Amino acid sequence: MFDIKVLSKADTEKLLKMNDVINVVENVYRSKSENKTCVFPLIFHEFEPGVADMDIKSGWLKESNIFGLKLVSWFGENVKKDLPALIGAIMVMDSTTGVPIGILDGAHITGMRTGAAGALGAKYLARPDSKTLLIVGAGHVSTFQMAATLLLFPDLKTVMIYDPMNFNTAITKAETIKDTLKNNFDIKVDEKVKFTAVSDIKDATGISDIIITVTPSRKPIIMKEWVKPGTHFSCIGADMSGKEEIDPEIFRDARVFGDDITQCINVGETEIPVALGIISKEHIAGEIGDIISGKTTGRENNDQITIFDATGIALLDLATAKLALDEAKRNSMGSTVDL
Amino acid sequence: MFDIKVLSKADTEKLLKMNDVINVVENVYRSKSENKTCVFPLIFHEFEPGVADMDIKSGWLKESNIFGLKLVSWFGENVKKDLPALIGAIMVMDSTTGVPIGILDGAHITGMRTGAAGALGAKYLARPDSKTLLIVGAGHVSTFQMAATLLLFPDLKTVMIYDPMNFNTAITKAETIKDTLKNNFDIKVDEKVKFTAVSDIKDATGISDIIITVTPSRKPIIMKEWVKPGTHFSCIGADMSGKEEIDPEIFRDARVFGDDITQCINVGETEIPVALGIISKEHIAGEIGDIISGKTTGRENNDQITIFDATGIALLDLATAKLALDEAKRNSMGSTVDL
Repeated sequence: MFDIKVLSKADTEKLLKMNDVINVVENVYRSKSENKTCVFPLIFHEFEPGVADMDIKSGWLKESNIFGLKLVSWFGENVKKDLPALIGAIMVMDSTTGVPIGILDGAHITGMRTGAAGALGAKYLARPDSKTLLIVGAGHVSTFQMAATLLLFPDLKTVMIYDPMNFNTAITKAETIKDTLKNNFDIKVDEKVKFTAVSDIKDATGISDIIITVTPSRKPIIMKEWVKPGTHFSCIGADMSGKEEIDPEIFRDARVFGDDITQCINVGETEIPVALGIISKEHIAGEIGDIISGKTTGRENNDQITIFDATGIALLDLATAKLALDEAKRNSMGSTVDL
Repeated sequence: MFDIKVLSKADTEKLLKMNDVINVVENVYRSKSENKTCVFPLIFHEFEPGVADMDIKSGWLKESNIFGLKLVSWFGENVKKDLPALIGAIMVMDSTTGVPIGILDGAHITGMRTGAAGALGAKYLARPDSKTLLIVGAGHVSTFQMAATLLLFPDLKTVMIYDPMNFNTAITKAETIKDTLKNNFDIKVDEKVKFTAVSDIKDATGISDIIITVTPSRKPIIMKEWVKPGTHFSCIGADMSGKEEIDPEIFRDARVFGDDITQCINVGETEIPVALGIISKEHIAGEIGDIISGKTTGRENNDQITIFDATGIALLDLATAKLALDEAKRNSMGSTVDL
């Protein structure tokens, strides 16, 4: 009855350019600050704690006339079955008629919008003259962070990669990242940018202007006394109660922004500093969209520590999915099915 | 990355037989009573009150190894645009891996499982010698109720159809229903069964053994004093706070079952009798699945009034969708897409 576009992971990989995704994510953050969006309650179910769970995130983008959902499953045992542990599917509907318009694989879209989110935190909060980026966590997500941040900070000179679990992962990532960015993201990194795997997180922290954390850690990896004045943190990994990547004491004197304040306090990097009473909810300066929309200012001086806590919101997935659907239409890509 | 079966409304119409859907729905009710299912919280959003809304219902069927969701939109203005007001889409995933296995149109599946639900209420609660069925509400959903109930009660002699909004709708339905059941459901109704449109709901109520209500009413259509002893009600229409189809006083001395007790008290026909204090929560004898699983008994004597409050649960949609997917595989039907 309805013709629906279906886009596979491979389709979304071909269709999405990081620069466009950054624009889309920036617009969603602005719209959210201007009350032009609506985030519906999160559904979360653990099939078996620590082994398998799923969540359904949904919402409405009023200006784009779309609503929809992303269902993400995590089945830790899947690797043994030669299947990805994390599987996502996105459904997009027209919010003027309710008609479904697209169904998309969620894996690549999640990576792209998460990379854009971390980099936008740096764009609005890091010192504009930042030269040194430290990526904490050398997994799949880190690639997207580097792709987006290099686009927004063309003057970066050094990218350090630290992996708390396995130094070899960081080495491999540092060796292959230029090729990956060229081949998979169509991003040609300037010769002057050096990628280095680092094994001493204390020393690396002390010379970093921008630190992006993308680990599933449940205890701090970076301590406050290692951080130099003026450093910016984009904290990406914490998206579930109990997860934390940086010393909660760093929050005490920092200027803190989130993507969705309620969600940040419930499940983000901000959860533990608030729970410990290190900061109150009122200490949070706002949502990142409030800077973009001009409601508030970001960094106040060059010595301030800034933090962007990005927990991930379905609106980013929906807007990125819409971008992919529009591009697919323009390029006659993807499959069409009758629902 | 994953091959997913997509089934359109037309596919589900061809694939699903009412007898099979009745079996599936009966099994889901039993499983729910035996704690082999899990219903996730409902998401509901009104885009514009009374004009457009959507809900997401989701859950897990442990024995069938599936979980998933149904997203249903209702856009009242769609009729002006030549679009259906109610649009549904179902996503089914494998609950051992999280891998998506099917995406299906939800309209026909919802009709089928709702018909099965109403008829199963009658199977487990109505007098087995019931001869007279009254259908209140002559809309699209009423056809499915008649299809399923005629299969489970082959000795029915009279089916009365009443429409509270428009007598002509009831007349047309009574005139066309035999052909519809034959052509669309492959159900050949015995010659002895008479279908009659009725305009006097009081008189019709007084001679009915089984009454199935399928209207969007917000005030009682049937009053207690019209009801003869031994009548069974399957109340289908109330699925939202404020909706009611029968006099709440009917609940006072009735034996009452629901499909999901919490949901019945929140949004079903049971909401108002409980809110008014006519019955307490403890007055509810159980869920329909408790009769099927043998945990409790249904009707206790031939004079008792019985009520089945069916609010609709996503588990029925998921199990019916799984049946359609299995049939599609067996018959090489539907489309397959790569997600």
